Amino acid sequence: MHNQTLILIQCRDAVGLVAIISNVLAQHHLNIVAMREFVDEVDRKFFVRVVCSGTLHNKTKLQEDLSAQLPESTQLTINPDIQKKLVILVTKEHHCLADILVRYYFKTLQADVAAVIGNYDTLQHFTEKFDIPFHHISHEGKSKEEFEFELAEAIKPYQPDYIILAKFMRILSPTFVSQFKGKLVNIHHSFLPAFIGANPYQQAHDRGVKIIGATAHYVTDDLDEGPIIVQNTKSIDHSYDVQRMRTAGKEIEKAVLIRAIQLLTEDRVMLNGNRTIVFK
Amino acid sequence: MHNQTLILIQCRDAVGLVAIISNVLAQHHLNIVAMREFVDEVDRKFFVRVVCSGTLHNKTKLQEDLSAQLPESTQLTINPDIQKKLVILVTKEHHCLADILVRYYFKTLQADVAAVIGNYDTLQHFTEKFDIPFHHISHEGKSKEEFEFELAEAIKPYQPDYIILAKFMRILSPTFVSQFKGKLVNIHHSFLPAFIGANPYQQAHDRGVKIIGATAHYVTDDLDEGPIIVQNTKSIDHSYDVQRMRTAGKEIEKAVLIRAIQLLTEDRVMLNGNRTIVFK
Amino acid sequence: MHNQTLILIQCRDAVGLVAIISNVLAQHHLNIVAMREFVDEVDRKFFVRVVCSGTLHNKTKLQEDLSAQLPESTQLTINPDIQKKLVILVTKEHHCLADILVRYYFKTLQADVAAVIGNYDTLQHFTEKFDIPFHHISHEGKSKEEFEFELAEAIKPYQPDYIILAKFMRILSPTFVSQFKGKLVNIHHSFLPAFIGANPYQQAHDRGVKIIGATAHYVTDDLDEGPIIVQNTKSIDHSYDVQRMRTAGKEIEKAVLIRAIQLLTEDRVMLNGNRTIVFK
Amino acid sequence: MHNQTLILIQCRDAVGLVAIISNVLAQHHLNIVAMREFVDEVDRKFFVRVVCSGTLHNKTKLQEDLSAQLPESTQLTINPDIQKKLVILVTKEHHCLADILVRYYFKTLQADVAAVIGNYDTLQHFTEKFDIPFHHISHEGKSKEEFEFELAEAIKPYQPDYIILAKFMRILSPTFVSQFKGKLVNIHHSFLPAFIGANPYQQAHDRGVKIIGATAHYVTDDLDEGPIIVQNTKSIDHSYDVQRMRTAGKEIEKAVLIRAIQLLTEDRVMLNGNRTIVFK
Repeated sequence: MHNQTLILIQCRDAVGLVAIISNVLAQHHLNIVAMREFVDEVDRKFFVRVVCSGTLHNKTKLQEDLSAQLPESTQLTINPDIQKKLVILVTKEHHCLADILVRYYFKTLQADVAAVIGNYDTLQHFTEKFDIPFHHISHEGKSKEEFEFELAEAIKPYQPDYIILAKFMRILSPTFVSQFKGKLVNIHHSFLPAFIGANPYQQAHDRGVKIIGATAHYVTDDLDEGPIIVQNTKSIDHSYDVQRMRTAGKEIEKAVLIRAIQLLTEDRVMLNGNRTIVFK
Repeated sequence: MHNQTLILIQCRDAVGLVAIISNVLAQHHLNIVAMREFVDEVDRKFFVRVVCSGTLHNKTKLQEDLSAQLPESTQLTINPDIQKKLVILVTKEHHCLADILVRYYFKTLQADVAAVIGNYDTLQHFTEKFDIPFHHISHEGKSKEEFEFELAEAIKPYQPDYIILAKFMRILSPTFVSQFKGKLVNIHHSFLPAFIGANPYQQAHDRGVKIIGATAHYVTDDLDEGPIIVQNTKSIDHSYDVQRMRTAGKEIEKAVLIRAIQLLTEDRVMLNGNRTIVFK
Repeated sequence: MHNQTLILIQCRDAVGLVAIISNVLAQHHLNIVAMREFVDEVDRKFFVRVVCSGTLHNKTKLQEDLSAQLPESTQLTINPDIQKKLVILVTKEHHCLADILVRYYFKTLQADVAAVIGNYDTLQHFTEKFDIPFHHISHEGKSKEEFEFELAEAIKPYQPDYIILAKFMRILSPTFVSQFKGKLVNIHHSFLPAFIGANPYQQAHDRGVKIIGATAHYVTDDLDEGPIIVQNTKSIDHSYDVQRMRTAGKEIEKAVLIRAIQLLTEDRVMLNGNRTIVFK
Repeated sequence: MHNQTLILIQCRDAVGLVAIISNVLAQHHLNIVAMREFVDEVDRKFFVRVVCSGTLHNKTKLQEDLSAQLPESTQLTINPDIQKKLVILVTKEHHCLADILVRYYFKTLQADVAAVIGNYDTLQHFTEKFDIPFHHISHEGKSKEEFEFELAEAIKPYQPDYIILAKFMRILSPTFVSQFKGKLVNIHHSFLPAFIGANPYQQAHDRGVKIIGATAHYVTDDLDEGPIIVQNTKSIDHSYDVQRMRTAGKEIEKAVLIRAIQLLTEDRVMLNGNRTIVFK
């Protein structure tokens, strides 16, 4: 039972889907207060996010009633956990982590930060100020397999909804990624797909760009190729050397990542192949 | 009969409105492809814009079926004219007019420009390049009543959907405004409600603002107080004197007005008291 | 002796000022690496900010040499303190304070935070996490005079370069302001001069604006009328109620205030009557 | 003799350059009213743009006096032609051309449009409305060499300062480019270096980007690799199909190209290897 009921549906497109859904909701005495839908006309897919007021008395029955009338292999989510659980992975840079922790501390992040894990201990002291456990798992002197095994073992007990790579500077193997499918979110210090890979600010400077950007995206096997959630850019000029570009870039990275986290924790992001639907 | 059916509804909020609407549409074999709604929870009002695919066979019947089930005094519009008719009022400045005429000429404006009326003839030659009638109605040597009477007489035969004040620099009386209720749209050379009235750039310069803006709004009796449709701003710095602010302002004015016209001609704007609902 | 010498000059405009300045600098073996000037052609005033490389061996001599050749009543500053000292005034809202303290903690703020003073103790615990003294000076049960006397007494021992009103919700009297002339900087939760005074978001909502903003400005006797340092805006739509406008507004307030602090601590802001020159 | 004298200097960096320049200018009774410089500290290069008031009596003498004291192989330009001459190359899309012609017609473009050349005649009628010669040079049935020979022959008599590729959809050979070195400016329908080459909007859609952009750049032998002058971006969301991205993209292309033209015609752009210095 909730004051508000949130329903996410993803299915093959068909005639009358909104009528079906709204009828079932009316039968359950739920009143639609906000509804956002999208039809992918190329791939014939239907996506909808519905917020209802009214008490949900029988979630199982609602699930059955909707499934009975919607197309086969519909993905249906009713009232996902409102308070998501996050694990944050970091290296040495603080800007994204600090923004997340301050919002968590002041209860303006609609999520719990369960733990922070760093391959360096640089951010341990800061993290612990906020009474959040910090695990230092160094990659040094270990094979990638060993390191990732330790990392995975540290993450699993927290059962996070999302693992946020908040400037985590190690490339993760497909094996690792496959264990946390759909849960890994990265901030890339570039306006993807420009300047993929290492040292994008040096690349950007050499190319003489007049705009820099950052990208928050799901992590998939292909480095820097996962579905994009949020991007933003900022104008620069010739007076920016690589260092100043990096400093300016951090502000964008921070803003883009926190926006992605907000959208994810409010269940506003749906996956559509290698693209995302974002119901703002 | 259309390939797409557009429905706009504005009514008292109630439980099950989306179900009612989507059911009626399904009975008419119309499939919802895009739907945007808004509930004003303070004033208990419901607004919805629905785009359906499928052929509308009986508009009158659809109107009846919807009206029968929706609350009393519902405002219901089915398939408003897709191609709106505009009359443009100008004084001497060309930037907004030129943008409109070029788009009209190249058929990227979803509207017809029926005529241009100027209280100076400055823009006559340019307008006529595009084979659009230009009426020169001078205000000089006339009382406001006389001038506005001539203006109204010139406008009426065109039966425009909207009268666009594209830098028309005469203040219109409540009498005039009342004849074209809901049809008059103005571009105000300021980020309202800052710098209401004359010479806003001088005011802005004296105040030392770091941002300038423009506002497209419906015209009501209260000067500069009508419902806002679109606003935008641009950063400036101390090096902008009044003239350069004015030049920069023109670019914003042009962009804001054309955006407002696009939203209006696509029937994306609904009035909610002195505010607008804009379904982008 | 510095690696870089920073010189700020403000004087009556005259022919050859750049030649005079650059000659004197060359005589002192200082090489200009960055120079930004502005001529206020209306008020005939000249402003310049020069950064030189090379060691400054004799600051007094440089001061004399420049003063001897520049117009009377020139304001000349050579190498102002690079590390500014700040005192932060707060009430209950944390967003601006937290951003400042995190940057201070990670040494990305070019300033020292000497103390935080709150008229509530809401932010005491957070402030003390960063080992910064917090003074709780309640306004309750005191006359304005008494409260402001206590406030001034608490501030003075720190001898701050700037007193940052980081969402300090008490109006300060001219008497108080006059004690800290040119040092008080406020963040106003509005795009001034729109919505001056209390509850700007309610005002903005009632007016149906499509953009909200924030303004960082020097505090003068006239409430909300001091010279503007930084402004920024953000687009909103009809779906923003007052609460959501307030939440969105906090992000702009935070960004605008930190930008103003950066500009001030890097000595990039010069006063020109009720306006500012900002050499970005 | 001018009311204002504009001087552009590009040379090896050295101590005292500003003093040298400002002294020579003072000797010529020229008063600096605006000065923007940039030192490329990596490549040890100095760039400056100076605007002086006062009458220039002897340009040759000024040139000699400056050259005598500045480092060898200095590039020095005194009072470049204020009114630049442009030739515009188009294919079928009108949006960039129309913006240029309207501004030219209303004398808000600080340049002459000498001619428009199209490889289709689609835009001939529109161009001729503005009494500007239109040359239709079809590429059909011709080798690249033949086509480019005709193109070059059509351009040369106009002796343009800049040749603006305003959505000219033919790739130009190095042979052609070398004839107009430093004069060819292109608008690329993408935020370079993302989505180089053909059909960038399809590429961008497939990648699921949340931002699109456009780039104005000098044309060099390497397709899409010339020095960037202006870039801008716009946020989009999942609801943009390729067509809508293209439409939105045109607005950015138009704005970016006109900005680049303004900067070029005001002599605010200097080349620094494969990058540009832009003194805004």
